[in-house]
Amino acid sequence: MRIALGVSYRGTAYQGWQSQPGGHTVQDHLQAALSRFADRPVQVMCAGRTDAGVHGLNQVVHLDTDVVREPFSWVRGTNTFLPADIAVQWCRPVPEGFHARNSARSRRYAYVLLQSPVRPSVEAGAAGWVFRPLDAQAMRDAAACLIGEHDFSAFRSSECQARTPVKTLYEISISRHGAYWRFEFEANAFLHHMVRNLMGCLLAVGTGTRAPQWVGAVLAGRDRSMAAPTFAPDGLYFLGPRYDAALNLPDRTPAHDWLPGPDNPEMPS
Amino acid sequence: MRIALGVSYRGTAYQGWQSQPGGHTVQDHLQAALSRFADRPVQVMCAGRTDAGVHGLNQVVHLDTDVVREPFSWVRGTNTFLPADIAVQWCRPVPEGFHARNSARSRRYAYVLLQSPVRPSVEAGAAGWVFRPLDAQAMRDAAACLIGEHDFSAFRSSECQARTPVKTLYEISISRHGAYWRFEFEANAFLHHMVRNLMGCLLAVGTGTRAPQWVGAVLAGRDRSMAAPTFAPDGLYFLGPRYDAALNLPDRTPAHDWLPGPDNPEMPS
Repeated sequence: MRIALGVSYRGTAYQGWQSQPGGHTVQDHLQAALSRFADRPVQVMCAGRTDAGVHGLNQVVHLDTDVVREPFSWVRGTNTFLPADIAVQWCRPVPEGFHARNSARSRRYAYVLLQSPVRPSVEAGAAGWVFRPLDAQAMRDAAACLIGEHDFSAFRSSECQARTPVKTLYEISISRHGAYWRFEFEANAFLHHMVRNLMGCLLAVGTGTRAPQWVGAVLAGRDRSMAAPTFAPDGLYFLGPRYDAALNLPDRTPAHDWLPGPDNPEMPS
Repeated sequence: MRIALGVSYRGTAYQGWQSQPGGHTVQDHLQAALSRFADRPVQVMCAGRTDAGVHGLNQVVHLDTDVVREPFSWVRGTNTFLPADIAVQWCRPVPEGFHARNSARSRRYAYVLLQSPVRPSVEAGAAGWVFRPLDAQAMRDAAACLIGEHDFSAFRSSECQARTPVKTLYEISISRHGAYWRFEFEANAFLHHMVRNLMGCLLAVGTGTRAPQWVGAVLAGRDRSMAAPTFAPDGLYFLGPRYDAALNLPDRTPAHDWLPGPDNPEMPS
């Protein structure tokens, strides 16, 4: 049978999601814990790989198993074998045709940013940082240039393995909560480093270094060297994928409430 | 001249505030960084010592120095020598008679708690955890028994060095923000482990293990063995001291906005 799990993690201590020979990735720890719980080797497929230092609030994976347990037994049992900064949040049986990555209709990311003259401390590793004040309207104007189906080559890392640079960005929302800004992105899929590259450009506009229209010109240029540097991974959270509502899989976890500001629950219309 | 500094830190990696021979405390790191910036040995006195694993958002210290620098130079310069999870937030000259501990009129703590069937992950070390639902009204009823001037011996650790167990608790506020609860405490001063011991008792009431009136009986008994076990340090934040308004020292920092829910800005009337 095929089951899906939702996983949350703080990425600071890990070399990203994807399994590596060294073994210190989120996927390696998750597979080791699942294998101990199931008492046989378990491999998982995820909805969206995250880079080193990037966090996940509702990463979804699927796996095939002949081990029959109550769904919450998978959650509780696997968590006893996971490090303190990784936890399985939920478990659901899914149809055989379900695929954590291929079945996803869209993916959401949030970027949390401290705006302060002083760098992060209590939230080190969990928030990005700008010391200059940001102009919300200028950033929203820049974001508006990016919405829709575009060739996002200008925001794609050279290591990106995606089949095509054409993605559909449904929404960018920008909100402020005290000293913190929350940027939320939803797209059918994201290229490697795309959110961090978009953040670099939005902040170049927000701090007044660039005009809002510059972001549209960068997009149209399809040339990575025109864009701003890739922004830090610290404040980046994979909020998770969305699937067909008929699958009835959770699209948020309690960990979503940890970030400053409410998440944006509306689906693209 | 005497100067005051506000300091924020994540306590997870440190053996508490207070300087120790081993040297891995927040005070040790702060003094080492200040000494490098000032190019001579610097010692500080703090408003409220925190235990291992407890965080600070506006810990206030004072120090005496003949080094003359702009206040923000102290902030920026010292921060370059501090670990990523400790930062000086502000610096102000203060009168010679100012004393970070003795001048404080009151102190505030917040306890952040995840209520979920699943333990913390992304917020590991930064929030306490209960898996059973909490009854807010029962906890508020219990908290009401504690407000005012009392002998808090029942909530005092055996290692407490306070001169007297009699303290005045001005306020306990309890609020819920999605999956997280925020408990906020203000008193003229706190005994060692007092907030964590109060949390243990409030949660015994919140989960229905004890009736609200039991907390009043524990207080009246003045016997530590009657109370609930000391709760985990993970979710405890020293929000900082309050001083005479004429001193015009910041009573919050940008880091205060990191916690779920607004802090309670009212002074005790």
